[in-house]
Amino acid sequence: MRSQIDLLATVTVLGVLEQAYFALQVIYARRKYKISPPETTGHPEFERIFRAQANCSEYFPIFISLLWVAGVFFHQGVAAVCGLLYLYTRFRLGPLYASARLLWLLLGLALAGLLAHFFLPSSLAWTAALARPLQLLGAW
Amino acid sequence: MRSQIDLLATVTVLGVLEQAYFALQVIYARRKYKISPPETTGHPEFERIFRAQANCSEYFPIFISLLWVAGVFFHQGVAAVCGLLYLYTRFRLGPLYASARLLWLLLGLALAGLLAHFFLPSSLAWTAALARPLQLLGAW
Amino acid sequence: MRSQIDLLATVTVLGVLEQAYFALQVIYARRKYKISPPETTGHPEFERIFRAQANCSEYFPIFISLLWVAGVFFHQGVAAVCGLLYLYTRFRLGPLYASARLLWLLLGLALAGLLAHFFLPSSLAWTAALARPLQLLGAW
Repeated sequence: MRSQIDLLATVTVLGVLEQAYFALQVIYARRKYKISPPETTGHPEFERIFRAQANCSEYFPIFISLLWVAGVFFHQGVAAVCGLLYLYTRFRLGPLYASARLLWLLLGLALAGLLAHFFLPSSLAWTAALARPLQLLGAW
Repeated sequence: MRSQIDLLATVTVLGVLEQAYFALQVIYARRKYKISPPETTGHPEFERIFRAQANCSEYFPIFISLLWVAGVFFHQGVAAVCGLLYLYTRFRLGPLYASARLLWLLLGLALAGLLAHFFLPSSLAWTAALARPLQLLGAW
Repeated sequence: MRSQIDLLATVTVLGVLEQAYFALQVIYARRKYKISPPETTGHPEFERIFRAQANCSEYFPIFISLLWVAGVFFHQGVAAVCGLLYLYTRFRLGPLYASARLLWLLLGLALAGLLAHFFLPSSLAWTAALARPLQLLGAW
């Protein structure tokens, strides 16, 4: 059973590590620009780091939920790759639409997996046939 | 195994879609009232939408946790119905106590399910007998 | 299968109860110091309670993620004990480094469990041998 969720668990732990990294960045920026905890403004560089952390933190539960539903009902490997790409775009502080696009992709995979599960229950061969091109698309 | 969590996964994805809907509403309200991202105040209508989204976002992890524990340890169908009602009360921007009541209900189901699991382990017939009236109550 | 996650589910529900307790504390403090909902400042005692709740809420998804990965891939009992200690340090409004240390411990257990899963798949005896001293350490 563990082997069906090991990649999802790994991406989850990497996501937590990324959150920890951002939290530490905020602490360092607070010290550097002398902005003590209740305050969240005071220097544009601090505000940028603070907002990156807050935004990432806000989307974490959404990301984890979609990762697991997509991973369990669509395909673990594809979901894990999308998850890694999501964490990478967040880490590089890339444009928000890049990480949003990956969340939409995970949402699409989760929906596709659930639809296949509910409406193609006896024909697992179909699901596999459906998964392969989308898997290539996901990797691409 | 998937059939034991398919309804929970579906409600989870619907919850994510609701969060996405609220996030888009905030973006539209920002454009309409010309309030750029760091700001969270400026117009009562914007503040109402912003607070609805922030509040929903804050309770999302709690909701998902209770949904899954209640669904796995009490009854998947009952938990999924409560989850749908919760998302509906949130969507209609209904009074907060309506959605809070559904969270307390899910918490009660989760506790009942865990207690039944720990203290009635060998008598599954008991759990089922206990679940039926509560199931009707939950639907009501 | 439920018996492999029952302690994790129990700690999860206790974590939700703690969040509910903090949320109620904030509501009472708002009434006491007459600070209506959009405001988050106004009295040092209120701000302390508000920040405790906000901080706890922010770390909840991280905590739940680590608890479950550590519990499934390392050892359910050890992860549950760490989780209880985490909730206790939060409840006592203890220094933040105490609760942070428990999150790092859960992260270490999750990583150890995943590494053992990926690299010691056939030698479960090894994992058990590895788990015992760490289990004692975790309890300590």
